[in-house]
Amino acid sequence: MYSIGIDLGGTNIVASVVNEEYKILGTGKTPTNTPRSADEIFDDIAKVCREAMDKAGVKMEDISSVGMGTPGTVNSDGVIEFANNLGFANVPAKEMIKERLGDIPVFIANDANCAALGEAYAGCGNGSKNFVAVTLGTGVGSGIICEGQLVTGVNAAGGECGHTVIMMDGEECSCGRKGCWEAYASATALIRQTKAAMQENPDSVMHEIAEQEGKVSGRTAFDAMRKGDIAGIKVVDNYIKYVACGLINIINTLQPEIICIGGGICNEGDTLMTPLKRYVQADRYSIHSKIQTKIMRAELGNDAGIIGAAILGSIG
Amino acid sequence: MYSIGIDLGGTNIVASVVNEEYKILGTGKTPTNTPRSADEIFDDIAKVCREAMDKAGVKMEDISSVGMGTPGTVNSDGVIEFANNLGFANVPAKEMIKERLGDIPVFIANDANCAALGEAYAGCGNGSKNFVAVTLGTGVGSGIICEGQLVTGVNAAGGECGHTVIMMDGEECSCGRKGCWEAYASATALIRQTKAAMQENPDSVMHEIAEQEGKVSGRTAFDAMRKGDIAGIKVVDNYIKYVACGLINIINTLQPEIICIGGGICNEGDTLMTPLKRYVQADRYSIHSKIQTKIMRAELGNDAGIIGAAILGSIG
Repeated sequence: MYSIGIDLGGTNIVASVVNEEYKILGTGKTPTNTPRSADEIFDDIAKVCREAMDKAGVKMEDISSVGMGTPGTVNSDGVIEFANNLGFANVPAKEMIKERLGDIPVFIANDANCAALGEAYAGCGNGSKNFVAVTLGTGVGSGIICEGQLVTGVNAAGGECGHTVIMMDGEECSCGRKGCWEAYASATALIRQTKAAMQENPDSVMHEIAEQEGKVSGRTAFDAMRKGDIAGIKVVDNYIKYVACGLINIINTLQPEIICIGGGICNEGDTLMTPLKRYVQADRYSIHSKIQTKIMRAELGNDAGIIGAAILGSIG
Repeated sequence: MYSIGIDLGGTNIVASVVNEEYKILGTGKTPTNTPRSADEIFDDIAKVCREAMDKAGVKMEDISSVGMGTPGTVNSDGVIEFANNLGFANVPAKEMIKERLGDIPVFIANDANCAALGEAYAGCGNGSKNFVAVTLGTGVGSGIICEGQLVTGVNAAGGECGHTVIMMDGEECSCGRKGCWEAYASATALIRQTKAAMQENPDSVMHEIAEQEGKVSGRTAFDAMRKGDIAGIKVVDNYIKYVACGLINIINTLQPEIICIGGGICNEGDTLMTPLKRYVQADRYSIHSKIQTKIMRAELGNDAGIIGAAILGSIG
């Protein structure tokens, strides 16, 4: 049998047919074109599902379940309670998919949680049952898997490690709190930190790099560091300390087998991962334990969310 | 059938016979008298177990399992890997109890985790399957229960929410990190904060209160607040903000059904709980969710750890 995984994003709707070995066999895609009504968006969701089935050469009766990852919070009835960037409030996603695709088991979950499931089962987790995925992107997303199950809490809003405070009364976060990990460890935060350092260091090579690129990006400080720029080195070092701080908090709380790091910043590879592991190693509470949480890079990229959504039906 | 719960503490060893309704039927107790060899301490553990059985009027064959809570980290083989205040390193606790009490199922867990289990099953949790217990004492202890199971992680060192950083590069913590929640929200931290405020405010009524009590305690600032002392009010308000910060971090990560707060500071009752709930309510990420984590006071006091240890055998 096969399943369908859907990634409902603020920019695109993507659906894939996935087999039991977590391989993608065919994919459909269309722009989300927000703001639109939920009805229009769900019509397109059904359309890309059919496109994926056509490309994979399978029929509706070959599909055992449909799973969808969405931004925002989803309750246990499959209702999207709130998704800011889709303009959704109390959208009965599960029912709306069933209305369009027929009476098939449908599962809805938060997109970061789907990505965590995908990496845990089919990516760097290699089936790990105690796993946390962290995405360093525009924000800091995360998903927690404990004994093989997603930890979403009593209201399906759990797993938001990006919105734990690491610096009380610190930088403003998009969530309304001050000092959240996201406000220090996201790519957005790194860009803000880079701009601040550039202002303080008019001679830094970061100015030239940004001019060549046409903008300040999450790479600017890393590129400057590779050229030996002191200000760039400091930005990168501080940024990695911020990332490490949140990772150690997760470790001390959950001691997962693996924490997987994804998002654009991870393209820095060992430049990021080597010092990050060193900071985590030095400061964790479990320093006396023989077994330690492994920190790994995400492997599946954007496919993680789709594969994770497709798995939702098989993990109960 | 009955089970035995043991609380191995730095000061006392206590064991109780517990029935299937989580009621304590008989208790034995003796001082721990550290530093002593593990053999001597485990001889006394067996002795207090027999004392508890005598008092409860039950025999060894009526006991289905023995559970023990201990400070420090315990691995899945029932070995205490490291417990600083007992002077233990790699002590095979499970085997040492079996050697003394016979071939009976024995379970060993961290003491804060046992206390969490006790409150979840027999105390304020009333059977809650998604539950976090936080103890505001000398340190900040915590235990996490997810879908009815203790979350101890890959190395049994998990659940240490007290050692998550809320203020990077902040106050030194006993664990070696800087800025841990414990360094701001423990009774020890409150006393430090009270002393600092007293030094800055020579006219504060806190000086008189401390003189009458013979020391600065976790109550000093609360008592001053009740007398309208501005410096005392500020100490209490800041302290409650620190406690709230860590609680919100737990909520945003796990969204448990209940967080239970225990420890001496809770004797302040509503003076603590009412503003604490207000701060948590205002700042949590799940503000749009209909279901919210409940914050409750612990009910079982010191019995929580013993009852939780006694339950270890029945939760698999």
